[in-house]
Amino acid sequence: MLRTGFQVAVILGHHGALPGLTHLLPRFNPASAFGSSTVTLVSRVCWEMTESKNYALPNASWGPDMLSLYHEFLEKTKTEGWVRLPSFRSNRDHIQGFKLPLKSSANSDKSDSRLFTRCIEREGQGYEYVIFFQPSERKSICLFQPGPYLEGAPGFAHGGSLAALIDETFSKTAYLSGEGLLTVNFNIRFKKLIPLGSLAVLNVNVEKIEDQKVYLSCVTQSRDQQTVYAKASGTFLQMQLEEDSSQH
Amino acid sequence: MLRTGFQVAVILGHHGALPGLTHLLPRFNPASAFGSSTVTLVSRVCWEMTESKNYALPNASWGPDMLSLYHEFLEKTKTEGWVRLPSFRSNRDHIQGFKLPLKSSANSDKSDSRLFTRCIEREGQGYEYVIFFQPSERKSICLFQPGPYLEGAPGFAHGGSLAALIDETFSKTAYLSGEGLLTVNFNIRFKKLIPLGSLAVLNVNVEKIEDQKVYLSCVTQSRDQQTVYAKASGTFLQMQLEEDSSQH
Repeated sequence: MLRTGFQVAVILGHHGALPGLTHLLPRFNPASAFGSSTVTLVSRVCWEMTESKNYALPNASWGPDMLSLYHEFLEKTKTEGWVRLPSFRSNRDHIQGFKLPLKSSANSDKSDSRLFTRCIEREGQGYEYVIFFQPSERKSICLFQPGPYLEGAPGFAHGGSLAALIDETFSKTAYLSGEGLLTVNFNIRFKKLIPLGSLAVLNVNVEKIEDQKVYLSCVTQSRDQQTVYAKASGTFLQMQLEEDSSQH
Repeated sequence: MLRTGFQVAVILGHHGALPGLTHLLPRFNPASAFGSSTVTLVSRVCWEMTESKNYALPNASWGPDMLSLYHEFLEKTKTEGWVRLPSFRSNRDHIQGFKLPLKSSANSDKSDSRLFTRCIEREGQGYEYVIFFQPSERKSICLFQPGPYLEGAPGFAHGGSLAALIDETFSKTAYLSGEGLLTVNFNIRFKKLIPLGSLAVLNVNVEKIEDQKVYLSCVTQSRDQQTVYAKASGTFLQMQLEEDSSQH
């Protein structure tokens, strides 16, 4: 258990901004990863030394809107403290050496599992997305381009595909902002259908951290903010990852 | 437009039970499909003459729990008026000859799209599910066996994968019960994680139909009902499908 260090992150989370901290993130050294605070959490999720493919990088299926907004935020990782979160095939890759503090009788065959939002391998067919996280403001942006395998009504993204991606963006944001690990509840109000192949921007904010829970909100809209596709909220339970002794 | 016939279904929906109707369903003749009432709606969704693969049939990946409960409900289609809903690659296959009453600039390439909950082709890897609908009681059961590509926390189904399947089961149930077509809102409260490869049973009920909206609830639990995985509710907007003149 690495409770002491992680507790600092939670306490910092309660008080909001983390001045100066964000400058450290792009230069963060994995070798000294498990110190304390949000830096620790970001470093664990952003583990750059993994051999796993990073799905959060541009590919040929990304449209011009997705690409140009990606580059805009990439620029902000250099100047405004945003962090581009890598996205691996499984959450196991994000938390190497750690495990959930849950008693589980689950089948845990590690070789053949995928994070749900990375379940479709072929570029452009399913989920194309990248999450940028802003530690000092405890917020995230997720750029989402739904492919044809995410269909609900003909020609449009399934409401469930958007709900699942918001939940996934919530979960990474909740964890990085205050060790929110498990979804307690999730609400979504749909305003307009998202055409397949277009860009939707998820704007996620941590509203508060209270009573061992992280409360988040999300507005999903078009790039020009003229069209709101959905509004959502969610609550995550704070839990601390345990060191995985089976790895040693 | 086939408004007249469909309006009957909506009106019937307001008054609840449809005595005697359910006996017609298993023997329903697609050739006389577009009469009126819930029979019309069921026939459109259950269109048996399609050449599309029906994903709601057992395959080698189904575990003993899933298989035996499937056969239990299959028996009820003969004796208690339940209807096993077929499940095709796209909603286009469910509503052949019709289209949504939406103005759309969406890319509608029909050849390369998939219903989100059928996005993973290989048996057992992704969503394995089958929905049984009970017209006279306006309720559904969905048997769900999440595969390893639906992972969230290591070893467990992603909360978003369950949310998406509940939304999908809601949408079929809302449509068949009262032409509820589009999700307005969706709420889910998670109680316990679902181990990958196990069986979860979604119990969906139409709570009311009011002000052009269909209100639904869902309890997701283990087969023995001893474990509640999640509780959800959702609201769907009533809309009528339009005849697709481009098909003629």
